[in-house]
Amino acid sequence: MSKIAPLSGFPELLPAQRAVEREVIASLSRTFELHGFANIETRVVEPIDRLAKGGEVDKEIYVLQRLAAEPDAKAELGMHFDLTVPFARYVLEHAGHLEFPFRRFQVQPAWRGERPQEGRFRQFTQADVDIVGRDELPFHHDVEVMSVMVDALSRLPIPRLSFQFNNRKLIQGFYRGLGIDDVTDAIRVIDKLDKLPADEVARMLVERVGTTPEQAQRCLELATIRVSDSAFVEQVRALGVTDELLDQGLEELAAVVEGCRAVAGDRVDVEANLRIARGLDYYTGTVVEVFMAGYERLKSVGGGGRYDALASDGRTTYPGVGVSFGVSRTLVPLISDGVLSGSRPVPSAVLVALNTEDDRAASTEVAAALRQRDIACEVAPSPAKFGKQIRFAERRGIPYVWFVQADGTNQVKDIRSGEQVDADPATWTPPEQDLRPTIISTASTSEENQ
Amino acid sequence: MSKIAPLSGFPELLPAQRAVEREVIASLSRTFELHGFANIETRVVEPIDRLAKGGEVDKEIYVLQRLAAEPDAKAELGMHFDLTVPFARYVLEHAGHLEFPFRRFQVQPAWRGERPQEGRFRQFTQADVDIVGRDELPFHHDVEVMSVMVDALSRLPIPRLSFQFNNRKLIQGFYRGLGIDDVTDAIRVIDKLDKLPADEVARMLVERVGTTPEQAQRCLELATIRVSDSAFVEQVRALGVTDELLDQGLEELAAVVEGCRAVAGDRVDVEANLRIARGLDYYTGTVVEVFMAGYERLKSVGGGGRYDALASDGRTTYPGVGVSFGVSRTLVPLISDGVLSGSRPVPSAVLVALNTEDDRAASTEVAAALRQRDIACEVAPSPAKFGKQIRFAERRGIPYVWFVQADGTNQVKDIRSGEQVDADPATWTPPEQDLRPTIISTASTSEENQ
Repeated sequence: MSKIAPLSGFPELLPAQRAVEREVIASLSRTFELHGFANIETRVVEPIDRLAKGGEVDKEIYVLQRLAAEPDAKAELGMHFDLTVPFARYVLEHAGHLEFPFRRFQVQPAWRGERPQEGRFRQFTQADVDIVGRDELPFHHDVEVMSVMVDALSRLPIPRLSFQFNNRKLIQGFYRGLGIDDVTDAIRVIDKLDKLPADEVARMLVERVGTTPEQAQRCLELATIRVSDSAFVEQVRALGVTDELLDQGLEELAAVVEGCRAVAGDRVDVEANLRIARGLDYYTGTVVEVFMAGYERLKSVGGGGRYDALASDGRTTYPGVGVSFGVSRTLVPLISDGVLSGSRPVPSAVLVALNTEDDRAASTEVAAALRQRDIACEVAPSPAKFGKQIRFAERRGIPYVWFVQADGTNQVKDIRSGEQVDADPATWTPPEQDLRPTIISTASTSEENQ
Repeated sequence: MSKIAPLSGFPELLPAQRAVEREVIASLSRTFELHGFANIETRVVEPIDRLAKGGEVDKEIYVLQRLAAEPDAKAELGMHFDLTVPFARYVLEHAGHLEFPFRRFQVQPAWRGERPQEGRFRQFTQADVDIVGRDELPFHHDVEVMSVMVDALSRLPIPRLSFQFNNRKLIQGFYRGLGIDDVTDAIRVIDKLDKLPADEVARMLVERVGTTPEQAQRCLELATIRVSDSAFVEQVRALGVTDELLDQGLEELAAVVEGCRAVAGDRVDVEANLRIARGLDYYTGTVVEVFMAGYERLKSVGGGGRYDALASDGRTTYPGVGVSFGVSRTLVPLISDGVLSGSRPVPSAVLVALNTEDDRAASTEVAAALRQRDIACEVAPSPAKFGKQIRFAERRGIPYVWFVQADGTNQVKDIRSGEQVDADPATWTPPEQDLRPTIISTASTSEENQ
């Protein structure tokens, strides 16, 4: 038997920490549902050839095999490594039973066999929202789905987030208008601005992609544009490139940025950042990456965009637009840094004390009356001295201890203040904030205190 | 690329069906929390030697391997096949951070590589509640945890359930009092009463276990006792066997049956059924199996019991008592039989109609006002003719369509009745039952209509 030890890359939460994660997921789900998104769950396995379609992800896939399988049996199933691949398959498999545009959200774990590091796990939970059309999907859904995620994340008590948008049409149109042939290759080089100095990137554009030094300079100028409203439109125009696709990209990006600003309030930043490209090839319009203040080392905590062919069965194509939020990637570091914690590890707001073991029925009856009115509670496990029962509650963060008196009357004690008052199990109610575990956050979300 | 086809044993739900599952899980979770149980989730993988501990389950374990692993790399991780093994490991791993008795519930999928059949899947969701002590766990927790599951399941709109309880001490004490040496072997034979006639089982007891014909007869008499209150105590006593452990078992079983009857109301049956043994060897006291009326072919839809050594690290032993409910095993057949369905596949209660694409902002504003008051809604995807927009809502089961009039006033139409009235987005509220998708159940739970 292996010794009990944590498995690297498979984080596990203690009960109070799990209460934080649950409340975050519940809050996200509430917002998604208010916007009409239906929840689905997909099976966690897919045929390997479907997972390996992209080619480059092979190394990260976990494959499944029965322990008792023949030694040379070929594995056919693998664990999904994101929620997009299984969602695309779900749409194709169930298309006849879905109404399009289909709005769904999905909160599930995914698995990658990669080397664990901070914020990168082998099992991690994601929350995705997408809208998928059949044959066509009007652009206004880009604005909609991005605003929904901004709305959802702005309600979380986490450090300030920044949504950084760009648009593939804008980049492609600009490069095309400049006369660059291999747009994809150019994007790949520009993406290195994260790690390399600008003049090095310019040199690579010239040497690898074959641009002129002047074209390279324009690409760099485009990539440095970063503003929090639609002022970028004028700045791009000032670079003197004209192209139809560029115009469309500018218009779309302006609409996404303005639409998201309108719901962002003062807790989320929304920017046009013309350097954002996102590596994956299937994005065709809007792209977004989400960053968290003070946690830039995690890279993005969310991202997504528009894909004109999310799924296709040869006859019908399903365009989609969506965005994914890394629940584990965000919460595990925040919890381990103490930025987020749960107010208590148990749902109970009340411990009903026990006078003697023979009085258990009386205490159970009080507990039942409290539960009748949605007050979570538990009866003390043993008729220890009251001091010990109070400490039992204290260690669990249970704020109230209830005493059934010998004469049948009742009292309840707030063990934080020590205040003890007469109470009736049919009517007494704790203050709203004591009813259930809540998230305690030290995250500053105001702009001044970043 | 493999053709898109369902994977046998991996059921997947459509959005309206998933709404049923979600509401069931939410209802169970609410009840567990009202009783002070904290939710946890464990990682889905465990070291293989921990999973294979029991020996007999080997064949069903799915092992995980990186796709890019060396061909002869030894697999070290497997998917958990229930929630008990990972929970026991979680308790040992995190014991220093938990308060005992530790009350937890867990709702997660598990995986088994077995041959799929109705109600038996390769991926299936379970809901488990357990209470675990350190070194000791008073018996009253048996009554508590079983009552909590009775309470939780009695709130579900599913066919009538029957909780059938027994107690290992009762069986062991009775057999010992009769003078049977190999109690475990005798239990194993008696367990065959499901499949074999009574005289065949009696013959096996004599030939295989070495009982006298009279002892075998008594065992069969015990196994036929099945009553819905503590009348079994007198019936067992009438068999004339005396034993200390038997007395304890009788007392415990009576307490569990009476405690559960007290919360069962008229939607769940509670019985003492002295044939129930449960195969797994680690049960040491209370055992239970749960059956669903009309679905006896699924065998039990839940089960559990008391284990005096749920987990042990050599120094400390953690006794536990718990019960598990098969969410997928129960819901997938009920959904596919049409017993349970969701009232609609989308959360939206309202579709806000669109006059022209230029009016999208006005419709979006109405939607925002409704969401402000927790009314889920969506804006029509295109400014089609109103008849088409109403059919769009109809196909999704959205009960209300909202019209923003040219003069800025608003009307809302109940598309089921056709009634259309003036409405203000800041105050109009649909009836409670239209607010969110609900479960439509044709299950009869009254005793008369079984």
